[in-house]
Amino acid sequence: MKKNRFYTLIALSVVALTATAQTFVTAPPAGAAPGAARPSFRFPARVISPEVHDNGTVTFRFSAPQATKVELSGQFLKKNLPMTKDENGLWSVTTGKVKPDIYPYNFVVDGITVADPNNVDIFPNERFKGSLLDVKGKTPSVQDLQDVPHGKVTYAFYHSKSLDLERPLLIYTPPGYTEDTQKSYPVLYLIHGMTDTQETWYKVGRMNYILDNLIAQGEAEPMIVVMPYANAYPALMKKNPGTQMNLMSTDMFTNELLKEIIPYTEANYRAKADRDSRAIAGFSLGGRQTLGAGLGHPDVFAYVCPMAPAVFPQGLDQDFKETYAPIDQLRTLKLLWIGCGKDDSLYAGSKALAKKLGSLKVKYETLYSPGGHTWMNCRLFLATIAPKLFK
Amino acid sequence: MKKNRFYTLIALSVVALTATAQTFVTAPPAGAAPGAARPSFRFPARVISPEVHDNGTVTFRFSAPQATKVELSGQFLKKNLPMTKDENGLWSVTTGKVKPDIYPYNFVVDGITVADPNNVDIFPNERFKGSLLDVKGKTPSVQDLQDVPHGKVTYAFYHSKSLDLERPLLIYTPPGYTEDTQKSYPVLYLIHGMTDTQETWYKVGRMNYILDNLIAQGEAEPMIVVMPYANAYPALMKKNPGTQMNLMSTDMFTNELLKEIIPYTEANYRAKADRDSRAIAGFSLGGRQTLGAGLGHPDVFAYVCPMAPAVFPQGLDQDFKETYAPIDQLRTLKLLWIGCGKDDSLYAGSKALAKKLGSLKVKYETLYSPGGHTWMNCRLFLATIAPKLFK
Repeated sequence: MKKNRFYTLIALSVVALTATAQTFVTAPPAGAAPGAARPSFRFPARVISPEVHDNGTVTFRFSAPQATKVELSGQFLKKNLPMTKDENGLWSVTTGKVKPDIYPYNFVVDGITVADPNNVDIFPNERFKGSLLDVKGKTPSVQDLQDVPHGKVTYAFYHSKSLDLERPLLIYTPPGYTEDTQKSYPVLYLIHGMTDTQETWYKVGRMNYILDNLIAQGEAEPMIVVMPYANAYPALMKKNPGTQMNLMSTDMFTNELLKEIIPYTEANYRAKADRDSRAIAGFSLGGRQTLGAGLGHPDVFAYVCPMAPAVFPQGLDQDFKETYAPIDQLRTLKLLWIGCGKDDSLYAGSKALAKKLGSLKVKYETLYSPGGHTWMNCRLFLATIAPKLFK
Repeated sequence: MKKNRFYTLIALSVVALTATAQTFVTAPPAGAAPGAARPSFRFPARVISPEVHDNGTVTFRFSAPQATKVELSGQFLKKNLPMTKDENGLWSVTTGKVKPDIYPYNFVVDGITVADPNNVDIFPNERFKGSLLDVKGKTPSVQDLQDVPHGKVTYAFYHSKSLDLERPLLIYTPPGYTEDTQKSYPVLYLIHGMTDTQETWYKVGRMNYILDNLIAQGEAEPMIVVMPYANAYPALMKKNPGTQMNLMSTDMFTNELLKEIIPYTEANYRAKADRDSRAIAGFSLGGRQTLGAGLGHPDVFAYVCPMAPAVFPQGLDQDFKETYAPIDQLRTLKLLWIGCGKDDSLYAGSKALAKKLGSLKVKYETLYSPGGHTWMNCRLFLATIAPKLFK
């Protein structure tokens, strides 16, 4: 039953969907894009971007007939690359060979930073909209989707009595969770960075692929991973416009975690509810929160893994004095692991923390990796710690 | 234990997070935004946008010191609104009173369409990046997050033997699904429109809030909702660059649904596996796919609900002849429901389809609503059909 009939509207859409040139056609509105509610809706042509070539170079394309200057900005570049415009107003540039990894990038259009409209992979964030370039190596890496048993990532809500808010969180359940309804699992609480959201460890951190692959290889224990939205301030400020932010204090988040998120998790998932079955890890401000909750409550967490934590040499004494548990309790942790990029502006804080822990005879491990304050490093950190947890 | 210490970097960030003016400060990089890998990373200031006021007007803000013209484009507007720039380069506009609903919108910056960087609610789509304005009414609506028992939305993958691809899909499980491990549920297969993704019914269609609320009110049966990514062409074209798109034929999607998605669902979820427990609904091209699969297989689905389907008066005879089941089988459907906006360019197709069904003595229902080919209508359609299913 072969069909190749084309009716006016759909025929034009098919042209649009296969064209790479900047052509605009009238088509059934997609329900979004500007003007979609109006009869004169014009549907942007399909543009392939980014296009990763077999030799590892990548072509980026962006349609902007009116623009006078378009650049590519990306974390795989040392500096922005100028793009060039063709006769249809389609800007493009082909990079040199890009090292396999997943990188945030943007177009800078006459000074305005924009996401790539033709890339569905968006960086979830409160303050910018970036796109993600995914360059695969010759063999699949730990952060690639592979044909192994897959865990599931669930978007859920819990009611926070403490904040009087419905709060979102993501929960990864490992492969086999649904099938074996008797087994219970240890839990990693995994916290995003400043301005990130509860989605960032999933959509950018690819935590599900990393766990799926490490579990399939037998390198990591099957575990539940809980990813809360650690920044309640936007919702609180909407409710009470006078709310003052205090990002240095981790008390509000620690309270939310201990009083709301952990009880929700242990009531609603087959989570092992003992200290040796709880780990906490987080990036940047989430690393500071990891230390606040983890070193503050070594009776609750046996594994504490700050990643490029927002701690500072001159603030450490006060953190230990006011927030963290007594030293003898810190010495009982099964793992205290610190990761940081050597080019990270927060590197000094991680090194000072490690030095102080050493002077206090609290055992710790470190990974000081190349690179900066990036999610390329976050994925490396997660792939490094996951095999160390719950063993 | 009060803490109001501020260290250099974080102090600046706090300023940034509380400022509404367009000021840029050096701060710990968020790991994304352009140049984040570089030491000179500059972190954009927090801008509140959109800000919904108590009187129902809305202020939008966008920082663009270099831009010469910025407009607001949105599906709540009859035409774009010009924005004005202050001395810091912050553009803003306050609209008139906006009718409570959820609307896609964009900024148009010197002709370039961009999402609102300060709004986390993004319209998932293959070809544009829009933002969502959520204006609440005085009392919560069916599409609002309310303090009722919540279902969960799970992001999963299945391996499609037919396509030889790992394919994503979202599954909504109703409140109580986890708690009562014996109960099984009917399933609604819910399909997005052209250029949308598996996320669009969730992130834009708010299908979870609609179902949560209708189930809490006792108006809808608790059901599982499966949202596949109906467009396999991008993945197929990546694998085989010569792949030709044929959006008019629904055969490939019907095969995927019957051979892969339904078996995956019924093997992995407590899904009732009989015809009377299966419904299919979809928007636009997904409405065409709904008709292809649903009217093609009334032995598989008892409920078929196209929403603004991409069908055309001149193509109906061929659809009935080549794709749909014999008329006597169509007469056995428990529900054939057609929704379309009266301003939708596809309205003629829906009316012609209804007329033809009438002439063939196949029972059907219709809802012809105000408005066009929009997700405001999609949510209305879902809230309308959900109470009619599985009863």
